[in-house]
Amino acid sequence: MAITQNQKEEIDHQKSIETPTRRATAPKLEEILYEAIPVLDHGFIRVIDYMGNDNAVVQAARVSYGKGTKAVREDQALISYLMRHHHSTPFEMCEIKYHVKLPIFVARQWIRHRTANVNEYSARYSILDNEFYIPNKENLAIQSSSNRQGRGDVLNDETAQEIQKLLREDANKAYEHYSYMLGNKDDIEQSGLARELARMNLSLNFYTQWYWKIDLHNLLHFLHLRSDPHAQYEIRAYAEQMLETVKRWVPITYEAFNQYRRYATTLSAKAQDVIKRMLKGESLNAENSGLGKREWNELMQKFDL
Amino acid sequence: MAITQNQKEEIDHQKSIETPTRRATAPKLEEILYEAIPVLDHGFIRVIDYMGNDNAVVQAARVSYGKGTKAVREDQALISYLMRHHHSTPFEMCEIKYHVKLPIFVARQWIRHRTANVNEYSARYSILDNEFYIPNKENLAIQSSSNRQGRGDVLNDETAQEIQKLLREDANKAYEHYSYMLGNKDDIEQSGLARELARMNLSLNFYTQWYWKIDLHNLLHFLHLRSDPHAQYEIRAYAEQMLETVKRWVPITYEAFNQYRRYATTLSAKAQDVIKRMLKGESLNAENSGLGKREWNELMQKFDL
Amino acid sequence: MAITQNQKEEIDHQKSIETPTRRATAPKLEEILYEAIPVLDHGFIRVIDYMGNDNAVVQAARVSYGKGTKAVREDQALISYLMRHHHSTPFEMCEIKYHVKLPIFVARQWIRHRTANVNEYSARYSILDNEFYIPNKENLAIQSSSNRQGRGDVLNDETAQEIQKLLREDANKAYEHYSYMLGNKDDIEQSGLARELARMNLSLNFYTQWYWKIDLHNLLHFLHLRSDPHAQYEIRAYAEQMLETVKRWVPITYEAFNQYRRYATTLSAKAQDVIKRMLKGESLNAENSGLGKREWNELMQKFDL
Amino acid sequence: MAITQNQKEEIDHQKSIETPTRRATAPKLEEILYEAIPVLDHGFIRVIDYMGNDNAVVQAARVSYGKGTKAVREDQALISYLMRHHHSTPFEMCEIKYHVKLPIFVARQWIRHRTANVNEYSARYSILDNEFYIPNKENLAIQSSSNRQGRGDVLNDETAQEIQKLLREDANKAYEHYSYMLGNKDDIEQSGLARELARMNLSLNFYTQWYWKIDLHNLLHFLHLRSDPHAQYEIRAYAEQMLETVKRWVPITYEAFNQYRRYATTLSAKAQDVIKRMLKGESLNAENSGLGKREWNELMQKFDL
Repeated sequence: MAITQNQKEEIDHQKSIETPTRRATAPKLEEILYEAIPVLDHGFIRVIDYMGNDNAVVQAARVSYGKGTKAVREDQALISYLMRHHHSTPFEMCEIKYHVKLPIFVARQWIRHRTANVNEYSARYSILDNEFYIPNKENLAIQSSSNRQGRGDVLNDETAQEIQKLLREDANKAYEHYSYMLGNKDDIEQSGLARELARMNLSLNFYTQWYWKIDLHNLLHFLHLRSDPHAQYEIRAYAEQMLETVKRWVPITYEAFNQYRRYATTLSAKAQDVIKRMLKGESLNAENSGLGKREWNELMQKFDL
Repeated sequence: MAITQNQKEEIDHQKSIETPTRRATAPKLEEILYEAIPVLDHGFIRVIDYMGNDNAVVQAARVSYGKGTKAVREDQALISYLMRHHHSTPFEMCEIKYHVKLPIFVARQWIRHRTANVNEYSARYSILDNEFYIPNKENLAIQSSSNRQGRGDVLNDETAQEIQKLLREDANKAYEHYSYMLGNKDDIEQSGLARELARMNLSLNFYTQWYWKIDLHNLLHFLHLRSDPHAQYEIRAYAEQMLETVKRWVPITYEAFNQYRRYATTLSAKAQDVIKRMLKGESLNAENSGLGKREWNELMQKFDL
Repeated sequence: MAITQNQKEEIDHQKSIETPTRRATAPKLEEILYEAIPVLDHGFIRVIDYMGNDNAVVQAARVSYGKGTKAVREDQALISYLMRHHHSTPFEMCEIKYHVKLPIFVARQWIRHRTANVNEYSARYSILDNEFYIPNKENLAIQSSSNRQGRGDVLNDETAQEIQKLLREDANKAYEHYSYMLGNKDDIEQSGLARELARMNLSLNFYTQWYWKIDLHNLLHFLHLRSDPHAQYEIRAYAEQMLETVKRWVPITYEAFNQYRRYATTLSAKAQDVIKRMLKGESLNAENSGLGKREWNELMQKFDL
Repeated sequence: MAITQNQKEEIDHQKSIETPTRRATAPKLEEILYEAIPVLDHGFIRVIDYMGNDNAVVQAARVSYGKGTKAVREDQALISYLMRHHHSTPFEMCEIKYHVKLPIFVARQWIRHRTANVNEYSARYSILDNEFYIPNKENLAIQSSSNRQGRGDVLNDETAQEIQKLLREDANKAYEHYSYMLGNKDDIEQSGLARELARMNLSLNFYTQWYWKIDLHNLLHFLHLRSDPHAQYEIRAYAEQMLETVKRWVPITYEAFNQYRRYATTLSAKAQDVIKRMLKGESLNAENSGLGKREWNELMQKFDL
């Protein structure tokens, strides 16, 4: 992660200023406000701002005049109830804003979540830095043979090294030519190729950055999908760091999310029927279950059978 | 506005608590946080929370590591530029949350703005109060003869009084029967008609309330449409009070909004051509302008001609 | 359902016109296009238009140059897979448009689904008809004692009749005064009270109507929530008729929806663990299960235990 | 544009099938349905499906039982009125679906329009073709000195040629290594590097493709912004071809859009005041106008002064 000395000072300066507010606060989240939390080789997430906390969820659910909260235990019960029954609107009443630095191919997956606000660093307007993502060896894996959109075994050391070298050389070469086309000068008034054109030579592992703002309900949906083992490792790495910030921000909601969403499981009508029959003592197998083979295997796995 | 003693205490209590925060603050808005600002006869708006300020717009536009701000003058210039050129995403980086009490027929117009989060008081779950809107005499007007969806002259005093009486009697009768059907008891475990059914007897001037949260860009769009003279008076009354809160929250953005949106005007291709020719000294009238009669009149009005 | 002779002729006329198209069609849905399907006492749904069919889901999932389809069996397998794994974007590639006549209190629940397009009949612009909803006796139930937002037992015949009478009298009186305030004339240029004001005297059981357009993914989400036994009966009545139109439109998707969404069930992390242990032969009860009492009961019910 | 023989046959086959429908149709658009309309060097747009036509706008605005249309002239007047007064909901009642092949850097701008449905070709799942965008010489321009995010003069022939060569060589090299890392085989069960990783070596001028579906209101907003002279040429090239399809689809709406949106102009409060004074005969200049210099210049340009 390349934070310049200048940027570091800006961050430290902003962290140092405390102002009184009458708004709801989340002290644990305040502790890490503005800090760059590293992700991948040069990326980060930074929490820039937030609105509301667990209390605000309760307050909105009750359309209340005051804080809306009674005992902590009652708040927990209400938040669990809302989560279990998919009453999503009270969770939409909290909002968070991140500053994220991420490879372009990750940004392309991320942006598919449309219920969010985004301000991206513009490569029409500014010149990108020479920063690109090179996977660690333990993240360089072969194409999965069972899952057409996933990874299988990790490459052997030699091949991994070769691929890292290829990626690095190509990215460096791409940047060198990008820079050359721009006129090779730092001067913004140069007369090289227009920035909006030159950028097309950069590869998808170059880093971009954006401000990204989203409400808690949609954030949890994003994190549920993107922290899933089937998500691509590189976006999962971001989701995992963001989950830590959610835990600091709204610990009660975080627990309910884990319980009723993240680690919950869904059974199809047929799968539910299979479990019913097994609980009654019937002996079932892939053939007589009525499930497809793939669904049967998934089901057995879910219940350690 | 019927705020009970109990509600007033809850509000005052919440106002009295100050906590330090590292987040962006808007001191002028903090002053009125949680306060019920009266609208119509029993309605109000209350600012419950906010995220960001003018600075946050600048910061997001620059995808900055620090506050993003330089001199106030530069911030003003940037915000004006963004507003003029419809670069809306930086304004989406601020968010505000209101608690609003409003007649149901106003709520029905309001909810058409879809890019917002809403938690409404549930009349399936709770019993509504006997509070309904009766327009002041000066707001009781006849159907406009020129505008099929607007008002014309104010009614004479006698008729106005008669209409107020009718509205009041019908609403009171409706509530009486609502209450009767519910079993006429305050006890939540009563066995009267289900609340979700009984409510259908109430008329559209009864008050409901909700928490409503929206980003600054979409709020300004809402306020632009709803503070317009063609908007129904009752929703305009809310828009006007909300504009005051925007002025406290993001004064620079508020000015740019007035200049480039609220008090700006749009000319069609043909109307622009007419003005061009007039500026060159041509003498034009409704007939030779090429505009429809209605558009010609609107254009002349715009330029005091 | 009061469709006038004139409206009936307009509908029949539109039904009678067939044009050739190269687009995807859904023959079973074409059969009922434009027809008013009755719901409640005066309401209806009418399918006005649609885009795509089951094939279009497959085609989009494959980003295909042609129809995208192979064998029906393969299409079924793909659609099931997409539904099971919450790959929602291909389902967003189909769209449907309804004309719906519905009581205002139902419209108020309905509109909470924001990812849809709506054109509502304007009571600022036009005069509403004297049509309101009166529940059948079998739908007049007491407040549930176990569920704060639901219904319990049906009222006895006498009370039901009394309540129907009250609702009917109040609605008729409301309309009479509405009409009186408007100047009691059909003439649009009358000088009675502005329509935008007079309407506030009408109660929430009056009928309104709108054009409502939505994509298949969001429609299924709407129907999942609104056909649920916990949804209010009056909106469920609409959802059930709409499900029949979905079955005609996209029968393969409809099946997958039933299997993996509508009749599927979700287990929390703890509930999954309980089932795991029971399948291993452990004997569990409310106390030693680790679940709350309510969740335990729900779980036992799900598996007929 | 590389449409394979196989793809061409699929397209031709789909074009050849006509089915009767009772839905609204747009005959001029049917003519070009499914056809690949070339954009840039390898891209295209194809209209895959549509819902509604000019009539459907009128029908929705009137919440009508039949076609909603009266005389063509009346329809034109209504559509003009709706467009002028920003009554956007009736335009949301039409929908269109495109298949688009476009360079990734264009896709990244395009996707910022969030109110649309998208299915993109997945490079996690499939292998991308060796197709990338190389600008024509007349589109290779230097960075604008007046506009930080635009282009200035076209490069001289020699430099243009050099840049084309650089871009082509880098893209070819990137693809060669992409292909090598994948195991250099067409076999999907190969054990090269996972596709989701290998793709990061490709540059932003590689082509991707997607199905993109949007309602007419949001499409016009997209086309307004992206056909603007300030939009990057490469996305403008798509917008211009799409405008031709809109003209075929909804010719009346297209005219109103040109008149009241695309070729309309907006004056700020101050600019309007300046024009007012000039029309009264006052002689104004940059200094005494009250406008900033930039705004003054823009205003003078608008009125050819």
